[in-house]
Amino acid sequence: MNTSNHVRIVEVGARDGLQNEKTLLPTDVKIALIDRLSGTGLKSIEATSFVSPKWVPQMADAAEVYQGIRKVPGVSFPVLVPNEQGYERARAVGVTEVAVFTAASEAFNRKNINASIDESIERFMPVLDRAKADGVKVRGYVSTVLGCPYQGEVPVSDVVRVARRLHELGCYEVSLGDTIGVGTPAKARAMLHAVAQEVPMAALAVHFHDTYGQALANILACLEEGVRVVDSAVSGTGGCPYAKGATGNVASEDVVYMLQGLGLHTGIDLDILIATGAWLAGQLHKETASRVTRARTAA
Amino acid sequence: MNTSNHVRIVEVGARDGLQNEKTLLPTDVKIALIDRLSGTGLKSIEATSFVSPKWVPQMADAAEVYQGIRKVPGVSFPVLVPNEQGYERARAVGVTEVAVFTAASEAFNRKNINASIDESIERFMPVLDRAKADGVKVRGYVSTVLGCPYQGEVPVSDVVRVARRLHELGCYEVSLGDTIGVGTPAKARAMLHAVAQEVPMAALAVHFHDTYGQALANILACLEEGVRVVDSAVSGTGGCPYAKGATGNVASEDVVYMLQGLGLHTGIDLDILIATGAWLAGQLHKETASRVTRARTAA
Repeated sequence: MNTSNHVRIVEVGARDGLQNEKTLLPTDVKIALIDRLSGTGLKSIEATSFVSPKWVPQMADAAEVYQGIRKVPGVSFPVLVPNEQGYERARAVGVTEVAVFTAASEAFNRKNINASIDESIERFMPVLDRAKADGVKVRGYVSTVLGCPYQGEVPVSDVVRVARRLHELGCYEVSLGDTIGVGTPAKARAMLHAVAQEVPMAALAVHFHDTYGQALANILACLEEGVRVVDSAVSGTGGCPYAKGATGNVASEDVVYMLQGLGLHTGIDLDILIATGAWLAGQLHKETASRVTRARTAA
Repeated sequence: MNTSNHVRIVEVGARDGLQNEKTLLPTDVKIALIDRLSGTGLKSIEATSFVSPKWVPQMADAAEVYQGIRKVPGVSFPVLVPNEQGYERARAVGVTEVAVFTAASEAFNRKNINASIDESIERFMPVLDRAKADGVKVRGYVSTVLGCPYQGEVPVSDVVRVARRLHELGCYEVSLGDTIGVGTPAKARAMLHAVAQEVPMAALAVHFHDTYGQALANILACLEEGVRVVDSAVSGTGGCPYAKGATGNVASEDVVYMLQGLGLHTGIDLDILIATGAWLAGQLHKETASRVTRARTAA
Protein backbone atom coordinates (compact mmCIF):
# COMPACT_ATOMS: atom_id res chain seq x y z
CA MET A 1 0.00 0.00 0.00
CA ASN A 2 1.31 3.39 -1.03
CA THR A 3 1.33 5.71 1.93
CA SER A 4 2.96 8.68 0.23
CA ASN A 5 0.99 11.84 0.89
CA HIS A 6 1.92 13.46 -2.40
CA VAL A 7 -0.27 13.15 -5.48
CA ARG A 8 0.76 14.33 -8.93
CA ILE A 9 -2.06 15.73 -11.04
CA VAL A 10 -1.64 15.40 -14.79
CA GLU A 11 -3.69 18.26 -16.20
CA VAL A 12 -5.27 17.16 -19.49
CA GLY A 13 -7.71 20.02 -20.06
CA ALA A 14 -5.76 21.69 -22.84
CA ARG A 15 -5.69 18.43 -24.82
CA ASP A 16 -8.24 15.78 -23.82
CA GLY A 17 -10.57 18.54 -22.69
CA LEU A 18 -10.41 21.03 -25.56
CA GLN A 19 -10.23 18.27 -28.16
CA ASN A 20 -13.80 17.34 -27.23
CA GLU A 21 -15.22 20.83 -26.93
CA LYS A 22 -17.42 22.27 -29.65
CA THR A 23 -15.96 25.74 -29.24
CA LEU A 24 -12.65 26.08 -31.01
CA LEU A 25 -10.40 28.34 -28.97
CA PRO A 26 -7.97 30.70 -30.69
CA THR A 27 -4.31 29.72 -30.37
CA ASP A 28 -3.48 32.63 -28.08
CA VAL A 29 -6.25 31.60 -25.68
CA LYS A 30 -4.89 28.04 -25.56
CA ILE A 31 -1.45 29.44 -24.81
CA ALA A 32 -2.91 31.68 -22.11
CA LEU A 33 -4.68 28.66 -20.61
CA ILE A 34 -1.49 26.62 -20.39
CA ASP A 35 0.48 29.55 -19.01
CA ARG A 36 -2.18 30.07 -16.37
CA LEU A 37 -2.09 26.37 -15.54
CA SER A 38 1.67 26.38 -15.12
CA GLY A 39 1.17 29.21 -12.63
CA THR A 40 -1.00 27.03 -10.37
CA GLY A 41 1.80 24.74 -9.26
CA LEU A 42 0.86 21.91 -11.64
CA LYS A 43 3.92 19.91 -12.67
CA SER A 44 2.44 17.96 -15.63
CA ILE A 45 0.34 19.78 -18.19
CA GLU A 46 -0.60 18.03 -21.39
CA ALA A 47 -0.28 20.80 -23.94
CA THR A 48 -1.71 19.59 -27.24
CA SER A 49 -1.92 16.75 -29.71
CA PHE A 50 0.06 16.29 -32.91
CA VAL A 51 -2.69 14.35 -34.62
CA SER A 52 -3.83 14.98 -38.14
CA PRO A 53 -5.92 18.19 -38.32
CA LYS A 54 -8.18 16.22 -40.65
CA TRP A 55 -9.27 14.11 -37.66
CA VAL A 56 -9.03 16.63 -34.87
CA PRO A 57 -9.37 20.20 -36.18
CA GLN A 58 -9.25 21.52 -32.59
CA MET A 59 -5.56 20.58 -32.47
CA ALA A 60 -4.45 21.92 -35.86
CA ASP A 61 -2.37 24.62 -34.15
CA ALA A 62 -0.36 22.12 -32.05
CA ALA A 63 3.03 23.48 -33.13
CA GLU A 64 2.05 27.12 -32.53
CA VAL A 65 0.62 26.29 -29.12
CA TYR A 66 3.69 24.39 -28.03
CA GLN A 67 6.01 27.09 -29.29
CA GLY A 68 3.97 29.81 -27.62
CA ILE A 69 3.77 28.49 -24.09
CA ARG A 70 6.11 29.49 -21.30
CA LYS A 71 8.37 26.51 -20.59
CA VAL A 72 8.37 26.78 -16.82
CA PRO A 73 11.35 24.91 -15.34
CA GLY A 74 10.27 21.77 -13.50
CA VAL A 75 6.98 21.58 -15.37
CA SER A 76 6.54 18.95 -18.02
CA PHE A 77 4.36 19.58 -21.10
CA PRO A 78 3.65 16.22 -22.76
CA VAL A 79 1.91 16.16 -26.13
CA LEU A 80 -0.08 13.37 -27.71
CA VAL A 81 1.44 11.76 -30.81
CA PRO A 82 -0.42 9.06 -32.70
CA ASN A 83 2.42 8.04 -35.00
CA GLU A 84 5.91 8.81 -36.26
CA GLN A 85 4.75 11.75 -38.33
CA GLY A 86 3.23 13.35 -35.26
CA TYR A 87 6.38 12.61 -33.33
CA GLU A 88 8.46 14.42 -35.94
CA ARG A 89 6.21 17.47 -35.88
CA ALA A 90 6.42 17.50 -32.09
CA ARG A 91 10.18 17.14 -32.02
CA ALA A 92 10.55 19.91 -34.61
CA VAL A 93 9.25 22.36 -32.00
CA GLY A 94 11.33 20.94 -29.15
CA VAL A 95 8.89 18.63 -27.36
CA THR A 96 10.62 16.58 -24.62
CA GLU A 97 7.73 14.36 -23.52
CA VAL A 98 5.13 12.59 -25.66
CA ALA A 99 2.14 10.39 -24.99
CA VAL A 100 0.96 7.42 -27.02
CA PHE A 101 -2.40 5.74 -26.75
CA THR A 102 -4.26 2.53 -27.32
CA ALA A 103 -7.35 0.88 -25.88
CA ALA A 104 -7.92 -2.23 -23.81
CA SER A 105 -10.93 -3.03 -25.96
CA GLU A 106 -10.40 -4.81 -29.27
CA ALA A 107 -13.70 -3.45 -30.57
CA PHE A 108 -12.74 0.12 -29.68
CA ASN A 109 -9.42 -0.07 -31.50
CA ARG A 110 -11.10 -1.73 -34.46
CA LYS A 111 -13.78 0.98 -34.72
CA ASN A 112 -11.48 3.93 -34.06
CA ILE A 113 -8.28 3.15 -35.87
CA ASN A 114 -9.19 -0.02 -37.75
CA ALA A 115 -6.52 -2.04 -36.01
CA SER A 116 -6.28 -4.71 -33.34
CA ILE A 117 -4.74 -3.77 -30.02
CA ASP A 118 -1.48 -5.41 -31.07
CA GLU A 119 -1.50 -3.60 -34.41
CA SER A 120 -2.16 -0.30 -32.66
CA ILE A 121 0.89 -0.89 -30.49
CA GLU A 122 2.94 -1.83 -33.57
CA ARG A 123 1.97 1.50 -35.11
CA PHE A 124 3.57 3.56 -32.41
CA MET A 125 6.59 1.28 -31.92
CA PRO A 126 8.68 3.61 -34.11
CA VAL A 127 7.71 6.48 -31.82
CA LEU A 128 8.88 4.54 -28.78
CA ASP A 129 12.14 3.61 -30.49
CA ARG A 130 12.91 7.13 -31.58
CA ALA A 131 11.89 8.58 -28.23
CA LYS A 132 14.29 6.25 -26.48
CA ALA A 133 17.09 7.29 -28.83
CA ASP A 134 16.22 10.97 -28.38
CA GLY A 135 15.90 10.82 -24.60
CA VAL A 136 12.24 11.82 -24.88
CA LYS A 137 9.94 10.60 -22.09
CA VAL A 138 6.90 8.62 -23.17
CA ARG A 139 3.62 8.33 -21.31
CA GLY A 140 1.13 5.64 -22.36
CA TYR A 141 -2.65 5.84 -22.30
CA VAL A 142 -4.86 2.79 -22.12
CA SER A 143 -8.46 3.72 -22.78
CA THR A 144 -11.74 1.86 -22.18
CA VAL A 145 -10.34 0.13 -19.09
CA LEU A 146 -13.73 -0.20 -17.39
CA GLY A 147 -16.06 -0.48 -20.35
CA CYS A 148 -16.34 0.04 -24.07
CA PRO A 149 -19.07 1.73 -26.09
CA TYR A 150 -18.87 -1.11 -28.64
CA GLN A 151 -18.10 -4.32 -26.79
CA GLY A 152 -19.47 -3.41 -23.35
CA GLU A 153 -17.45 -5.28 -20.75
CA VAL A 154 -13.68 -5.17 -21.06
CA PRO A 155 -11.87 -8.09 -19.39
CA VAL A 156 -9.42 -6.95 -16.72
CA SER A 157 -6.89 -9.37 -18.21
CA ASP A 158 -6.88 -7.30 -21.41
CA VAL A 159 -6.21 -4.13 -19.43
CA VAL A 160 -3.35 -5.83 -17.60
CA ARG A 161 -1.86 -7.16 -20.82
CA VAL A 162 -1.94 -3.82 -22.62
CA ALA A 163 -0.67 -1.85 -19.63
CA ARG A 164 2.20 -4.28 -19.10
CA ARG A 165 3.11 -4.09 -22.77
CA LEU A 166 3.25 -0.28 -22.75
CA HIS A 167 5.38 -0.34 -19.65
CA GLU A 168 7.72 -2.98 -21.10
CA LEU A 169 8.05 -0.90 -24.25
CA GLY A 170 9.38 2.00 -22.24
CA CYS A 171 6.44 4.11 -21.11
CA TYR A 172 7.54 5.56 -17.78
CA GLU A 173 3.90 5.89 -16.78
CA VAL A 174 0.73 4.19 -17.94
CA SER A 175 -2.53 6.06 -17.52
CA LEU A 176 -5.59 3.83 -17.14
CA GLY A 177 -8.60 5.57 -18.63
CA ASP A 178 -12.30 4.99 -18.11
CA THR A 179 -13.07 6.65 -21.43
CA ILE A 180 -16.84 6.39 -21.19
CA GLY A 181 -17.06 6.97 -17.45
CA VAL A 182 -19.12 3.89 -16.65
CA GLY A 183 -16.85 2.51 -13.93
CA THR A 184 -17.71 2.30 -10.25
CA PRO A 185 -15.31 2.28 -7.29
CA ALA A 186 -14.96 -1.43 -6.53
CA LYS A 187 -14.42 -2.27 -10.20
CA ALA A 188 -11.94 0.55 -10.63
CA ARG A 189 -10.02 -0.58 -7.59
CA ALA A 190 -10.01 -4.24 -8.66
CA MET A 191 -8.77 -3.26 -12.15
CA LEU A 192 -5.99 -1.13 -10.69
CA HIS A 193 -5.05 -3.88 -8.26
CA ALA A 194 -4.75 -6.39 -11.10
CA VAL A 195 -2.62 -4.06 -13.23
CA ALA A 196 -0.38 -3.27 -10.25
CA GLN A 197 0.54 -6.96 -10.03
CA GLU A 198 2.37 -6.52 -13.35
CA VAL A 199 3.31 -2.82 -13.48
CA PRO A 200 4.71 -0.99 -10.44
CA MET A 201 2.07 1.21 -8.83
CA ALA A 202 4.50 4.14 -9.05
CA ALA A 203 4.29 3.83 -12.86
CA LEU A 204 0.48 3.96 -12.95
CA ALA A 205 -2.01 6.81 -13.24
CA VAL A 206 -5.80 6.84 -13.29
CA HIS A 207 -7.91 8.83 -15.72
CA PHE A 208 -11.63 9.13 -15.11
CA HIS A 209 -14.42 10.81 -17.00
CA ASP A 210 -17.38 11.96 -14.97
CA THR A 211 -20.04 10.81 -17.41
CA TYR A 212 -21.89 8.85 -14.71
CA GLY A 213 -20.77 11.07 -11.83
CA GLN A 214 -18.49 8.35 -10.45
CA ALA A 215 -15.10 9.94 -11.08
CA LEU A 216 -14.25 11.23 -7.61
CA ALA A 217 -15.48 8.08 -5.91
CA ASN A 218 -13.38 6.04 -8.33
CA ILE A 219 -10.34 8.20 -7.65
CA LEU A 220 -10.86 7.78 -3.91
CA ALA A 221 -10.98 3.99 -4.31
CA CYS A 222 -7.82 4.04 -6.42
CA LEU A 223 -6.00 6.28 -3.94
CA GLU A 224 -6.91 3.76 -1.25
CA GLU A 225 -5.37 1.10 -3.51
CA GLY A 226 -2.19 3.16 -3.69
CA VAL A 227 -2.17 5.16 -6.92
CA ARG A 228 -0.60 8.60 -6.61
CA VAL A 229 -0.99 10.04 -10.12
CA VAL A 230 -4.37 11.32 -11.28
CA ASP A 231 -5.34 12.79 -14.66
CA SER A 232 -7.94 15.56 -14.62
CA ALA A 233 -9.02 18.60 -16.61
CA VAL A 234 -9.53 22.09 -15.26
CA SER A 235 -13.21 23.07 -15.37
CA GLY A 236 -14.09 19.47 -16.32
CA THR A 237 -13.73 20.29 -19.99
CA GLY A 238 -14.38 17.80 -22.72
CA GLY A 239 -17.30 15.62 -23.38
CA CYS A 240 -17.82 12.02 -24.10
CA PRO A 241 -18.19 11.54 -27.83
CA TYR A 242 -19.99 8.26 -27.07
CA ALA A 243 -22.61 9.85 -24.83
CA LYS A 244 -23.61 13.23 -26.16
CA GLY A 245 -24.63 15.79 -23.58
CA ALA A 246 -22.63 13.94 -20.98
CA THR A 247 -19.89 15.55 -18.98
CA GLY A 248 -16.22 15.20 -19.71
CA ASN A 249 -13.07 14.73 -17.70
CA VAL A 250 -13.27 14.94 -13.97
CA ALA A 251 -12.62 18.56 -12.97
CA SER A 252 -9.16 19.23 -11.57
CA GLU A 253 -10.59 21.68 -9.05
CA ASP A 254 -12.87 19.00 -7.57
CA VAL A 255 -10.01 16.49 -7.43
CA VAL A 256 -7.65 18.92 -5.73
CA TYR A 257 -10.38 19.91 -3.25
CA MET A 258 -10.89 16.26 -2.33
CA LEU A 259 -7.17 15.59 -2.08
CA GLN A 260 -6.67 18.59 0.21
CA GLY A 261 -9.46 17.28 2.42
CA LEU A 262 -7.76 13.88 2.49
CA GLY A 263 -4.52 15.50 3.63
CA LEU A 264 -2.79 14.68 0.34
CA HIS A 265 -0.54 17.31 -1.20
CA THR A 266 -0.44 18.34 -4.85
CA GLY A 267 1.57 21.55 -4.70
CA ILE A 268 -1.33 23.22 -6.52
CA ASP A 269 -2.86 26.52 -5.44
CA LEU A 270 -6.58 25.73 -5.50
CA ASP A 271 -7.64 29.38 -5.63
CA ILE A 272 -5.58 30.03 -8.77
CA LEU A 273 -6.85 26.78 -10.28
CA ILE A 274 -10.47 27.84 -9.62
CA ALA A 275 -9.84 31.25 -11.17
CA THR A 276 -8.32 29.53 -14.21
CA GLY A 277 -11.30 27.18 -14.53
CA ALA A 278 -13.79 30.03 -14.26
CA TRP A 279 -11.87 31.99 -16.89
CA LEU A 280 -11.75 28.96 -19.22
CA ALA A 281 -15.49 28.37 -18.85
CA GLY A 282 -15.98 31.98 -19.94
CA GLN A 283 -13.78 31.43 -22.98
CA LEU A 284 -15.82 28.35 -23.88
CA HIS A 285 -19.11 30.17 -23.26
CA LYS A 286 -20.37 27.39 -21.03
CA GLU A 287 -20.98 26.79 -17.38
CA THR A 288 -18.04 25.17 -15.65
CA ALA A 289 -18.47 21.47 -14.87
CA SER A 290 -16.46 21.91 -11.67
CA ARG A 291 -18.75 21.89 -8.65
CA VAL A 292 -16.04 23.51 -6.56
CA THR A 293 -15.66 26.37 -9.02
CA ARG A 294 -19.44 26.79 -9.18
CA ALA A 295 -19.70 26.88 -5.40
CA ARG A 296 -16.76 29.20 -4.93
CA THR A 297 -17.68 31.64 -7.68
CA ALA A 298 -21.41 31.71 -6.82
CA ALA A 299 -22.73 34.95 -5.43
CA MET B 1 -17.81 -3.26 10.18
CA ASN B 2 -21.20 -3.64 8.53
CA THR B 3 -21.01 -6.22 5.80
CA SER B 4 -24.69 -6.21 4.86
CA ASN B 5 -25.13 -5.87 1.13
CA HIS B 6 -28.44 -4.03 1.39
CA VAL B 7 -28.63 -0.25 1.39
CA ARG B 8 -31.80 1.69 2.08
CA ILE B 9 -32.16 4.92 0.13
CA VAL B 10 -34.21 7.63 1.77
CA GLU B 11 -35.54 9.68 -1.13
CA VAL B 12 -35.72 13.34 -0.10
CA GLY B 13 -36.35 14.97 -3.48
CA ALA B 14 -40.00 15.77 -2.88
CA ARG B 15 -39.12 17.64 0.31
CA ASP B 16 -35.49 18.70 0.72
CA GLY B 17 -35.21 18.94 -3.05
CA LEU B 18 -38.36 20.82 -4.02
CA GLN B 19 -38.18 23.05 -0.97
CA ASN B 20 -35.04 24.61 -2.43
CA GLU B 21 -36.17 24.84 -6.04
CA LYS B 22 -37.24 28.17 -7.50
CA THR B 23 -39.99 26.58 -9.57
CA LEU B 24 -43.08 25.92 -7.49
CA LEU B 25 -44.66 22.68 -8.70
CA PRO B 26 -48.44 22.30 -8.69
CA THR B 27 -49.81 19.93 -6.06
CA ASP B 28 -50.82 17.30 -8.60
CA VAL B 29 -47.29 17.21 -10.03
CA LYS B 30 -45.85 16.69 -6.55
CA ILE B 31 -48.30 13.85 -6.03
CA ALA B 32 -47.37 12.37 -9.40
CA LEU B 33 -43.68 12.61 -8.45
CA ILE B 34 -44.17 10.71 -5.20
CA ASP B 35 -46.37 8.10 -6.87
CA ARG B 36 -43.71 7.60 -9.53
CA LEU B 37 -41.07 7.29 -6.83
CA SER B 38 -43.03 4.67 -4.95
CA GLY B 39 -43.12 2.73 -8.21
CA THR B 40 -39.32 2.51 -8.37
CA GLY B 41 -38.95 0.18 -5.41
CA LEU B 42 -37.96 2.93 -2.96
CA LYS B 43 -39.07 2.10 0.59
CA SER B 44 -38.59 5.52 2.22
CA ILE B 45 -39.88 8.62 0.46
CA GLU B 46 -39.97 11.89 2.31
CA ALA B 47 -43.22 13.41 1.10
CA THR B 48 -43.42 16.97 2.30
CA SER B 49 -42.91 19.34 5.18
CA PHE B 50 -45.50 20.69 7.59
CA VAL B 51 -43.64 23.92 8.18
CA SER B 52 -45.26 27.32 8.14
CA PRO B 53 -46.10 28.39 4.57
CA LYS B 54 -44.83 31.80 5.61
CA TRP B 55 -41.30 30.37 5.76
CA VAL B 56 -41.48 27.74 3.05
CA PRO B 57 -44.16 28.59 0.48
CA GLN B 58 -43.11 25.56 -1.60
CA MET B 59 -44.61 23.31 1.08
CA ALA B 60 -47.90 25.16 1.67
CA ASP B 61 -49.85 22.26 0.17
CA ALA B 62 -48.36 19.66 2.54
CA ALA B 63 -51.73 18.29 3.64
CA GLU B 64 -53.07 18.02 0.08
CA VAL B 65 -49.89 16.30 -1.11
CA TYR B 66 -49.93 13.77 1.69
CA GLN B 67 -53.61 13.06 1.21
CA GLY B 68 -53.19 12.69 -2.53
CA ILE B 69 -50.36 10.19 -2.71
CA ARG B 70 -50.83 6.46 -3.07
CA LYS B 71 -49.95 4.85 0.25
CA VAL B 72 -48.09 1.88 -1.13
CA PRO B 73 -47.87 -0.91 1.47
CA GLY B 74 -44.33 -1.35 2.76
CA VAL B 75 -43.32 2.16 1.74
CA SER B 76 -42.88 4.80 4.39
CA PHE B 77 -43.65 8.47 3.68
CA PRO B 78 -42.07 10.57 6.44
CA VAL B 79 -42.84 14.27 6.60
CA LEU B 80 -40.84 17.02 8.19
CA VAL B 81 -42.40 18.71 11.24
CA PRO B 82 -40.69 21.64 12.95
CA ASN B 83 -42.96 21.81 15.99
CA GLU B 84 -46.15 20.58 17.66
CA GLN B 85 -48.37 22.59 15.35
CA GLY B 86 -46.79 20.93 12.32
CA TYR B 87 -47.15 17.58 14.01
CA GLU B 88 -50.87 18.17 14.52
CA ARG B 89 -51.39 19.17 10.89
CA ALA B 90 -49.49 16.05 9.81
CA ARG B 91 -51.42 13.74 12.09
CA ALA B 92 -54.71 15.24 10.92
CA VAL B 93 -54.06 13.73 7.49
CA GLY B 94 -52.86 10.39 8.85
CA VAL B 95 -49.07 10.71 8.79
CA THR B 96 -47.35 7.74 10.48
CA GLU B 97 -43.72 8.89 10.35
CA VAL B 98 -42.28 12.32 10.98
CA ALA B 99 -38.84 13.87 10.89
CA VAL B 100 -37.42 16.51 13.22
CA PHE B 101 -34.30 18.53 12.65
CA THR B 102 -31.58 20.48 14.32
CA ALA B 103 -28.00 21.41 13.51
CA ALA B 104 -24.65 20.47 14.99
CA SER B 105 -23.58 24.09 14.68
CA GLU B 106 -24.59 26.55 17.39
CA ALA B 107 -24.19 29.44 14.95
CA PHE B 108 -26.46 27.77 12.40
CA ASN B 109 -29.26 27.19 14.90
CA ARG B 110 -28.86 30.70 16.21
CA LYS B 111 -29.09 32.25 12.73
CA ASN B 112 -31.88 30.02 11.45
CA ILE B 113 -34.23 29.57 14.36
CA ASN B 114 -32.76 31.94 16.91
CA ALA B 115 -32.12 29.16 19.39
CA SER B 116 -29.21 27.23 20.81
CA ILE B 117 -28.90 23.56 19.86
CA ASP B 118 -30.35 22.57 23.22
CA GLU B 119 -33.24 25.00 22.84
CA SER B 120 -33.94 23.68 19.35
CA ILE B 121 -34.19 20.18 20.78
CA GLU B 122 -36.45 21.46 23.58
CA ARG B 123 -38.75 22.91 20.92
CA PHE B 124 -39.49 19.58 19.33
CA MET B 125 -39.60 17.60 22.57
CA PRO B 126 -43.41 17.79 22.57
CA VAL B 127 -43.37 16.27 19.07
CA LEU B 128 -41.24 13.38 20.29
CA ASP B 129 -43.48 12.84 23.30
CA ARG B 130 -46.66 12.86 21.27
CA ALA B 131 -45.15 10.67 18.55
CA LYS B 132 -44.18 8.09 21.14
CA ALA B 133 -47.71 8.11 22.57
CA ASP B 134 -49.21 7.89 19.06
CA GLY B 135 -46.89 5.13 17.84
CA VAL B 136 -45.52 7.47 15.16
CA LYS B 137 -41.93 6.82 14.03
CA VAL B 138 -39.53 9.75 14.27
CA ARG B 139 -36.45 10.31 12.18
CA GLY B 140 -33.94 12.94 13.25
CA TYR B 141 -31.83 15.19 11.05
CA VAL B 142 -28.60 16.73 12.20
CA SER B 143 -27.42 19.34 9.73
CA THR B 144 -24.05 21.09 9.24
CA VAL B 145 -22.15 17.99 10.40
CA LEU B 146 -19.07 18.77 8.29
CA GLY B 147 -19.13 22.54 8.18
CA CYS B 148 -21.30 25.56 8.78
CA PRO B 149 -21.84 28.64 6.62
CA TYR B 150 -21.58 30.83 9.73
CA GLN B 151 -19.07 29.27 12.09
CA GLY B 152 -16.98 27.30 9.57
CA GLU B 153 -15.61 24.25 11.33
CA VAL B 154 -18.04 22.15 13.36
CA PRO B 155 -16.41 20.07 16.11
CA VAL B 156 -17.09 16.35 15.72
CA SER B 157 -17.88 16.25 19.42
CA ASP B 158 -20.87 18.52 18.79
CA VAL B 159 -22.14 16.21 16.06
CA VAL B 160 -21.76 13.21 18.38
CA ARG B 161 -23.56 14.98 21.22
CA VAL B 162 -26.51 16.08 19.10
CA ALA B 163 -26.86 12.73 17.31
CA ARG B 164 -26.76 10.83 20.59
CA ARG B 165 -29.37 13.14 22.09
CA LEU B 166 -31.76 12.62 19.16
CA HIS B 167 -31.30 8.88 19.40
CA GLU B 168 -31.82 8.89 23.18
CA LEU B 169 -34.99 10.94 22.71
CA GLY B 170 -36.47 8.23 20.53
CA CYS B 171 -35.41 8.91 16.93
CA TYR B 172 -35.16 5.45 15.36
CA GLU B 173 -32.70 6.86 12.83
CA VAL B 174 -30.44 9.89 12.81
CA SER B 175 -29.46 11.35 9.46
CA LEU B 176 -26.12 13.16 9.44
CA GLY B 177 -26.25 15.97 6.92
CA ASP B 178 -23.46 17.89 5.23
CA THR B 179 -25.81 20.77 4.54
CA ILE B 180 -23.32 22.93 2.65
CA GLY B 181 -21.55 20.07 0.90
CA VAL B 182 -18.05 21.02 1.97
CA GLY B 183 -17.05 17.66 3.43
CA THR B 184 -14.44 15.32 2.00
CA PRO B 185 -14.23 11.53 2.39
CA ALA B 186 -11.76 11.15 5.25
CA LYS B 187 -13.52 13.79 7.33
CA ALA B 188 -16.93 12.29 6.57
CA ARG B 189 -15.71 8.87 7.57
CA ALA B 190 -14.07 10.10 10.78
CA MET B 191 -17.24 11.97 11.75
CA LEU B 192 -19.38 8.88 11.12
CA HIS B 193 -16.94 6.71 13.04
CA ALA B 194 -17.12 9.03 16.05
CA VAL B 195 -20.92 9.15 16.02
CA ALA B 196 -21.10 5.36 15.67
CA GLN B 197 -19.27 5.03 19.00
CA GLU B 198 -22.38 6.46 20.65
CA VAL B 199 -25.26 5.59 18.33
CA PRO B 200 -25.56 2.16 16.70
CA MET B 201 -24.49 2.26 13.04
CA ALA B 202 -27.81 0.63 12.12
CA ALA B 203 -29.55 3.77 13.43
CA LEU B 204 -27.47 6.16 11.31
CA ALA B 205 -27.94 7.59 7.83
CA VAL B 206 -25.76 9.94 5.79
CA HIS B 207 -27.07 12.91 3.84
CA PHE B 208 -24.78 14.67 1.40
CA HIS B 209 -25.19 17.68 -0.82
CA ASP B 210 -23.09 17.77 -3.94
CA THR B 211 -22.14 21.43 -3.71
CA TYR B 212 -18.43 20.66 -4.01
CA GLY B 213 -18.88 17.46 -6.03
CA GLN B 214 -17.80 15.30 -3.11
CA ALA B 215 -21.08 13.54 -2.33
CA LEU B 216 -20.49 10.15 -3.97
CA ALA B 217 -16.93 9.93 -2.68
CA ASN B 218 -18.19 10.77 0.80
CA ILE B 219 -20.92 8.15 0.53
CA LEU B 220 -18.35 5.58 -0.57
CA ALA B 221 -16.18 6.37 2.46
CA CYS B 222 -19.18 6.10 4.79
CA LEU B 223 -20.27 2.79 3.23
CA GLU B 224 -16.76 1.52 3.90
CA GLU B 225 -17.23 2.64 7.49
CA GLY B 226 -20.44 0.61 7.65
CA VAL B 227 -23.41 2.91 7.09
CA ARG B 228 -26.27 1.33 5.13
CA VAL B 229 -28.81 4.16 4.88
CA VAL B 230 -28.25 7.01 2.41
CA ASP B 231 -30.41 10.08 1.78
CA SER B 232 -30.56 11.34 -1.79
CA ALA B 233 -32.87 13.22 -4.15
CA VAL B 234 -33.99 12.09 -7.58
CA SER B 235 -32.49 14.32 -10.28
CA GLY B 236 -30.30 16.00 -7.65
CA THR B 237 -32.97 18.57 -6.95
CA GLY B 238 -32.54 21.37 -4.51
CA GLY B 239 -29.86 23.90 -4.15
CA CYS B 240 -27.75 25.19 -1.40
CA PRO B 241 -29.26 28.41 -0.08
CA TYR B 242 -25.81 29.28 1.31
CA ALA B 243 -24.02 28.93 -2.04
CA LYS B 244 -26.21 30.26 -4.82
CA GLY B 245 -25.82 28.54 -8.16
CA ALA B 246 -24.45 25.46 -6.45
CA THR B 247 -25.98 22.05 -6.86
CA GLY B 248 -28.29 20.41 -4.39
CA ASN B 249 -28.75 16.97 -2.95
CA VAL B 250 -26.74 14.14 -4.38
CA ALA B 251 -28.79 12.57 -7.18
CA SER B 252 -30.47 9.28 -6.26
CA GLU B 253 -29.77 7.91 -9.74
CA ASP B 254 -26.02 8.44 -9.31
CA VAL B 255 -26.06 6.86 -5.85
CA VAL B 256 -28.00 3.82 -7.02
CA TYR B 257 -25.71 3.43 -10.04
CA MET B 258 -22.67 3.42 -7.74
CA LEU B 259 -24.29 1.02 -5.28
CA GLN B 260 -25.17 -1.40 -8.06
CA GLY B 261 -21.57 -1.29 -9.22
CA LEU B 262 -20.44 -2.01 -5.67
CA GLY B 263 -22.69 -5.06 -5.54
CA LEU B 264 -24.97 -3.45 -2.97
CA HIS B 265 -28.71 -3.89 -3.33
CA THR B 266 -31.36 -1.22 -2.96
CA GLY B 267 -34.42 -2.90 -4.45
CA ILE B 268 -34.72 0.10 -6.75
CA ASP B 269 -35.27 -0.17 -10.50
CA LEU B 270 -32.66 2.24 -11.87
CA ASP B 271 -34.37 2.59 -15.25
CA ILE B 272 -37.63 3.72 -13.67
CA LEU B 273 -35.73 6.04 -11.35
CA ILE B 274 -33.92 7.61 -14.32
CA ALA B 275 -37.20 8.08 -16.18
CA THR B 276 -38.66 9.71 -13.07
CA GLY B 277 -35.67 12.03 -12.74
CA ALA B 278 -35.82 13.04 -16.40
CA TRP B 279 -39.54 13.71 -16.07
CA LEU B 280 -39.02 15.79 -12.92
CA ALA B 281 -36.28 17.86 -14.58
CA GLY B 282 -38.78 18.62 -17.34
CA GLN B 283 -41.38 19.72 -14.79
CA LEU B 284 -38.80 22.00 -13.18
CA HIS B 285 -37.66 23.34 -16.58
CA LYS B 286 -34.03 22.65 -15.76
CA GLU B 287 -31.34 20.21 -16.75
CA THR B 288 -31.14 17.25 -14.43
CA ALA B 289 -28.21 17.30 -12.00
CA SER B 290 -27.92 13.52 -12.27
CA ARG B 291 -24.94 12.55 -14.40
CA VAL B 292 -26.39 9.08 -14.88
CA THR B 293 -29.68 10.45 -16.14
CA ARG B 294 -27.83 12.85 -18.46
CA ALA B 295 -25.69 10.05 -19.85
CA ARG B 296 -28.58 7.63 -20.23
CA THR B 297 -31.01 10.07 -21.78
CA ALA B 298 -28.42 11.69 -24.11
CA ALA B 299 -28.92 11.10 -27.81
